[in-house]
Amino acid sequence: MLKDYVHAEMPDEDELKAKLKEERAHLSASQMKLKEAGLPVMVLFEGWNAAGKGAVIGKVIRNIDPRFFKVATMDREPNEEEMRYPFLYRFIKEIPEAGKFRFFDTCWMEEIVDGVIYDSIDKDTYKQRVHSINVIERQLCDNGYLVIKFFFHISKKEQKKRLSSLLDSKDTRWRVDAEDLFQNKHYNKFLDVYERYLEDTNQSRAPWYIIDASDKKYAELQVLQFLNQGIDVALKNRKMNVPILQNTFPMARIPKLSDISLEDKVMTDEEYDVTLDILQKRLRDLGNKVYRKKIPVIVAYEGWDAAGKGGNIKRITEALDPRDYVVEPIASPEPHEKARHYLWRFWTRLPKTGHVTIFDRTWYGRVMVERLEGFCSENDWQRAYNEINEFEKELKDWGAVIIKFWVQIDKDTQLKRFNDRKNTPEKQWKITDEDWRNREKWDQYETAIDEMIEKTSTAFAPWHILESVDKKYARIKALTIVIDEIERALKER
Amino acid sequence: MLKDYVHAEMPDEDELKAKLKEERAHLSASQMKLKEAGLPVMVLFEGWNAAGKGAVIGKVIRNIDPRFFKVATMDREPNEEEMRYPFLYRFIKEIPEAGKFRFFDTCWMEEIVDGVIYDSIDKDTYKQRVHSINVIERQLCDNGYLVIKFFFHISKKEQKKRLSSLLDSKDTRWRVDAEDLFQNKHYNKFLDVYERYLEDTNQSRAPWYIIDASDKKYAELQVLQFLNQGIDVALKNRKMNVPILQNTFPMARIPKLSDISLEDKVMTDEEYDVTLDILQKRLRDLGNKVYRKKIPVIVAYEGWDAAGKGGNIKRITEALDPRDYVVEPIASPEPHEKARHYLWRFWTRLPKTGHVTIFDRTWYGRVMVERLEGFCSENDWQRAYNEINEFEKELKDWGAVIIKFWVQIDKDTQLKRFNDRKNTPEKQWKITDEDWRNREKWDQYETAIDEMIEKTSTAFAPWHILESVDKKYARIKALTIVIDEIERALKER
Repeated sequence: MLKDYVHAEMPDEDELKAKLKEERAHLSASQMKLKEAGLPVMVLFEGWNAAGKGAVIGKVIRNIDPRFFKVATMDREPNEEEMRYPFLYRFIKEIPEAGKFRFFDTCWMEEIVDGVIYDSIDKDTYKQRVHSINVIERQLCDNGYLVIKFFFHISKKEQKKRLSSLLDSKDTRWRVDAEDLFQNKHYNKFLDVYERYLEDTNQSRAPWYIIDASDKKYAELQVLQFLNQGIDVALKNRKMNVPILQNTFPMARIPKLSDISLEDKVMTDEEYDVTLDILQKRLRDLGNKVYRKKIPVIVAYEGWDAAGKGGNIKRITEALDPRDYVVEPIASPEPHEKARHYLWRFWTRLPKTGHVTIFDRTWYGRVMVERLEGFCSENDWQRAYNEINEFEKELKDWGAVIIKFWVQIDKDTQLKRFNDRKNTPEKQWKITDEDWRNREKWDQYETAIDEMIEKTSTAFAPWHILESVDKKYARIKALTIVIDEIERALKER
Repeated sequence: MLKDYVHAEMPDEDELKAKLKEERAHLSASQMKLKEAGLPVMVLFEGWNAAGKGAVIGKVIRNIDPRFFKVATMDREPNEEEMRYPFLYRFIKEIPEAGKFRFFDTCWMEEIVDGVIYDSIDKDTYKQRVHSINVIERQLCDNGYLVIKFFFHISKKEQKKRLSSLLDSKDTRWRVDAEDLFQNKHYNKFLDVYERYLEDTNQSRAPWYIIDASDKKYAELQVLQFLNQGIDVALKNRKMNVPILQNTFPMARIPKLSDISLEDKVMTDEEYDVTLDILQKRLRDLGNKVYRKKIPVIVAYEGWDAAGKGGNIKRITEALDPRDYVVEPIASPEPHEKARHYLWRFWTRLPKTGHVTIFDRTWYGRVMVERLEGFCSENDWQRAYNEINEFEKELKDWGAVIIKFWVQIDKDTQLKRFNDRKNTPEKQWKITDEDWRNREKWDQYETAIDEMIEKTSTAFAPWHILESVDKKYARIKALTIVIDEIERALKER
């Protein structure tokens, strides 16, 4: 795309001026529509060093109220802390809220291109990352984001000229670093890698716009034009439904809830005490190994109210070093969370390598409570199964152990426990009116859960059912599964 | 305190067991009271390496529901990113929410002691940091936090024994690092520094508890006893008022609002255009210098509704490199913000060194809207003046430029602008019912603002009044002040 890219002819001075004025006013007028529509706009500036990305960002934002945008400067290598998360993590942290702009001064492209040039990522990693980027860009679009990608293009000669001119003055010399000079020297090598990346990530919903950056004013005009046009289209599409993608992940077979026998899933106290002790010791050792081998572990709990999630989680955490794990209780999203991609609050709560995060309720709220209470549209939750599988695949590819538990009880057991909670002062905090309301929707929930388990039991992150009429049984089963999965991961290293 | 510390006698095996059981149950029962009372509990574990801090944390949390606590592992040097913030930053980020525990596996003590031992901080810095710690611990307590500090004490001999035993086994060898051995070798040097720090930070509201850590079970018992006792006392004190401290900061004199003349504070369009251009160019240069010299800049805007904050801010940001600044619009706090110290959401929004953060409304909400709307108690906002001065002093000592603007108009001007907004479709988003309601309270606000300006115009962070009946005048004045303040800071470097 880059090599055979033909510059559109630059308008003459007067026309340029007139058009700039028009486009600036247009953008300025759009910001309120954007705010009202709750449209989040993510603008990625990539391209050659010294192509003027920063300067154009500086011009573009002059038309926007400072309350409505932020600039994310990602043009640097990830630091040590960030290296312990999936490579997308530091970018996803920065995605805008509904109704706001976020301008990325370089984004995931730059990191990958550098990786290829400096040989820090191999071919397979490149492929995997490009895939991850295509997935996340599509997911963002599907979830109502406008994603606009600019590639700032200048020739080798122009780049050289700019770098020389910066080096000429004492005041601007500091802006040039060794990497800039390296890039100019190896312009053609970079060109190949840029070219390939642009082609690999040129999606219809998040297409590339190549900006002729040889003239600064003209570059600004092009950016404004594409940006305004993108916003206008996106505003018209606000309520559009998105195609539901076919599942392409290998799936595991898990029975329907009604086919799960809860009988005989019991354990004597003696058996429990002895087994618990052995398993917790085993898990303690594995916890240390996981820490040393820097494996991230994610344990996700879902289950009926009063199924015994809390106590079950505790038997896991008791075996772990408190410095190495965290339990994330998930309630309904706060405003700043609701204003972003629904997976954002989970992305930002991921464990770093060597650590364990246990989610007490999870991203599956999307296809359960949010579905049933109408907190998202049908198209939203229908789409979510695949989006969640993609999310988990991303984590798996990163090297995470993912364990998903459904804690299962029957309706009578729930009633017994609700009443017990109601009648026991120390337990009353655990029971709310909402629990009783949810109970009335048991059958609807069961349908949703069956669908969820069927559609998200991928081979790499299947659901595990914990039969929990006898809580002891469920705890031992959970420990066994966690141990098995960690051991498997350790062997694969 | 440490050198002349006499161990209480350890109870015998049976008594220890019985007491442990009792204290564990006590803690377990406390967690719900804590949740109901909204009491945040911050527990700091400091002390000798290999004294068993982690192990005891592990034991203590077994009595708490995993949803109600987190462990913050701070036992490492700050990373590059964290080094660009005030040294308290990475700890304050981790303070608990109301109703929850946060266990710090080492906290600010460890960093400072290491600094002294390894000569990375000098005497003055030590003093300053100890002062900062005393201030923040007192502020946390005053704002309803329970802060409990444990020092885990073992003898040189005991430490050596433990390290040797860890080194003996292949499975535990990795737990010992060079620093542990260094500490044991230089035990007495560390003892001196620990001793001094404990004395320097032993405050009545956040006292030190020295834990005899020679026996693990006994250490656990002591921790549980002090923790339970602390919680019981704190729960009884929930509604206690806190003494208002006398101001000890040097103050600047700023007139009352009613004494500020708004007449003649005008500017012709021509004058404005020329001056704006000159000043913005000047600020652009200074912005680069600030970036290169790694000076953090904080600009805080407060002012009447429709006073022209937005446009004023824009004239500043237009002159800055978009990669180096961020505008933080401050609305009412979200639930996770309301659940913490009211300055937490500002601490976590600080610029890093070399960057500019512009706050569009600020922490002064505490003594304006929160005061007038009763969102906090009278004791809360009375105390806030000093807390805010301390906060700003902390930032100043860190090296920040702090500029506080009050954007001033008269009541008639506001009415004119409100009506203009109401009648102009593109401006309607700027005017809400709340604005009209606030307008009715003009006089109450004026009283509060006068008091605020009087009590928080410290010599190091005075208020600047921007007379904004003519917005042009106010913008030029703001630019001039920002330029002056930055130039002053550059000279002081």
